[in-house]
Amino acid sequence: MSRSIDLAVIPGDGIGQEVVTQGLKVLNAVLPQDVKLETKEYDLGARRWHRTGETLPDAELEALRGHDAILLGAIGDPSVPSGVLERGLLLKLRFAFDHFINLRPSKLFPNTATPLAGRPEIDFVVVREGTEGPYTGNGGSLRTGTEHEVATEVSVNTAYGVERVVRDAFARAAARPRKKLTLVHKNNVLVHAGHLWKNTFDKVAAEFPEVTTDYLHVDAATIFFVTQPERFDVIVTDNLFGDILTDLAAAVTGGIGLAASGNINPTGAFPSMFEPVHGTAPDIAGQGKADPTATILSVALLLRHLGYESEAVRIEEAVSADLAERDGQSARTTDEIGDALAVRVAS
Amino acid sequence: MSRSIDLAVIPGDGIGQEVVTQGLKVLNAVLPQDVKLETKEYDLGARRWHRTGETLPDAELEALRGHDAILLGAIGDPSVPSGVLERGLLLKLRFAFDHFINLRPSKLFPNTATPLAGRPEIDFVVVREGTEGPYTGNGGSLRTGTEHEVATEVSVNTAYGVERVVRDAFARAAARPRKKLTLVHKNNVLVHAGHLWKNTFDKVAAEFPEVTTDYLHVDAATIFFVTQPERFDVIVTDNLFGDILTDLAAAVTGGIGLAASGNINPTGAFPSMFEPVHGTAPDIAGQGKADPTATILSVALLLRHLGYESEAVRIEEAVSADLAERDGQSARTTDEIGDALAVRVAS
Ligand SMILES: CC(C)[C@H](C(=O)O)[C@@H](O)C(=O)O
Ligand SMILES: CC(C)[C@H](C(=O)O)[C@@H](O)C(=O)O
Repeated sequence: MSRSIDLAVIPGDGIGQEVVTQGLKVLNAVLPQDVKLETKEYDLGARRWHRTGETLPDAELEALRGHDAILLGAIGDPSVPSGVLERGLLLKLRFAFDHFINLRPSKLFPNTATPLAGRPEIDFVVVREGTEGPYTGNGGSLRTGTEHEVATEVSVNTAYGVERVVRDAFARAAARPRKKLTLVHKNNVLVHAGHLWKNTFDKVAAEFPEVTTDYLHVDAATIFFVTQPERFDVIVTDNLFGDILTDLAAAVTGGIGLAASGNINPTGAFPSMFEPVHGTAPDIAGQGKADPTATILSVALLLRHLGYESEAVRIEEAVSADLAERDGQSARTTDEIGDALAVRVAS
Repeated sequence: MSRSIDLAVIPGDGIGQEVVTQGLKVLNAVLPQDVKLETKEYDLGARRWHRTGETLPDAELEALRGHDAILLGAIGDPSVPSGVLERGLLLKLRFAFDHFINLRPSKLFPNTATPLAGRPEIDFVVVREGTEGPYTGNGGSLRTGTEHEVATEVSVNTAYGVERVVRDAFARAAARPRKKLTLVHKNNVLVHAGHLWKNTFDKVAAEFPEVTTDYLHVDAATIFFVTQPERFDVIVTDNLFGDILTDLAAAVTGGIGLAASGNINPTGAFPSMFEPVHGTAPDIAGQGKADPTATILSVALLLRHLGYESEAVRIEEAVSADLAERDGQSARTTDEIGDALAVRVAS
């Protein structure tokens, strides 16, 4: 384990800066004295784009590549045309750094307001593919803007890309107490991609006899997310289904304010990137109202990825304890939540 | 309005036969004496496929075309490879008969067990595109079964196809008291298709100034389905997003046992097809446990489509009253529910 962390920080837009500040506060508090933390901030996002027209220049992509990991706040603003920053910055990073594991744990913490009656037990992880599927940007449009327009989006799936994420998900399932892995796809309609996913899943399953397997169509999976979320342990799925399911998972576990994610390249060939699932929330930006917990939990994923397992656990336990003890009524500021968690992880 | 109905019936597999029987029972009970109902049953589905290898022969497709409408139970069985009956029968019918409106109302009826705490008011309609998007079967695989396999799925979207469903959705929204239409897509990632959908939506919106419009990414929409479902009135969306959202909608409104759907060609060029959203439920087939309400509500959509508005309303009110008065505890058989509703609509 390296005793130094060279971290790139992309605060981004909206509440991004606020939540990242708290994430760094907790990171500083949890790290052992002898670990040297260096951070470098990158000014990327909507403001930069308005100023210079740039989303992610090559020189900065190259510079980012040199860090151990990246902490990202949130990217986007209504003033920027839809897709510009998503494709030109956020997805560019995920693809350039081959973040094929998009890891999104979902847990119903004590005392959080789930919309589900009866507070079922929820503790699962979605392993979302991060570099293929309908996210490749493959597609186009013909006779654009006319009554004869045809627009296509191509979902690209490779044996190489599917197998590595499926294998990672099996390994994660095998390491958890319940050892259960559910593949989510839509192989009754998307037969080509579905066939590749299902066949790969069945093939890799043979190497993990201790893991119980299950398959669900994505539409059926959404039903179980609200009626029987306790049935899930680890889920592996494609890029778009994973996007949809993890927002739903965040909603049923008390909201997007608690949902963490890691865009991981497990080979270490590129820096992995950690970010809350939520967006920039421009309506509450700058008001100290944003919940930084999702970012702080993303810092835990970052630490785990870099080998600081006990520090990751300390953060997760601090969040659990903090939520368990808080009085559900009084709203705390972004800063207060960060302070409270920093104190907990330090002690 | 025609004073006769020539109905094709495809009971299909699993619980399909049972629920269709009740649907026909209620249809017979609600129709005025002078309306002549003729039905012809088509033996299509898993059993037929096992027997003959056929999914939907041309002669039967041709025969189906001659009817005023089609009532379908459910299609599929675990013994049939995934995709064979979906692509070869169910989707073939939707595409052959150009069912570009896949209409799926969602309503939280009194006394039904929603998984949502607080029982929010839910009463919206999803207008799902039915003939394009990722459902076209466009795509394929290369080097299938090898470690170099590449599998693609192409979402095809045309100005013609998008505009007609968007226009239909605006008209439906304009006819409802709240007059609100939400477009759901993922135009920050699926930029080509997203651009076509959003531009078309904005263009048609200009013709319906009385309709309030909104746009949501599909991932965000799933959050609101569980946290604020009352915000929706009419939703228009693509084929795949509509598939996912309507199962989720069924779940939050008390389960797939109540979700009706119509595969509609509003031009009347082809017969429209009405079916419950649920599947064949092989685990409970033949036991009289299936809830036929979704099929009976689909019969209401069928009647409305054929111009029998007051009969459609009678069925919907009967379902509401039946659910309001039932004792949530005692489970009724398929037949008992059908009988109860037949009695209500007749009186
Ligand atoms: C902003 C968008 C490109 C992104 C995605 O679709 O992956 C977001 O929704 C997410 O889940 O991280
Ligand atoms: C069975 C399947 C092909 C179908 C679909 O995906 O449309 C079903 O899920 C539905 O929603 O009617």
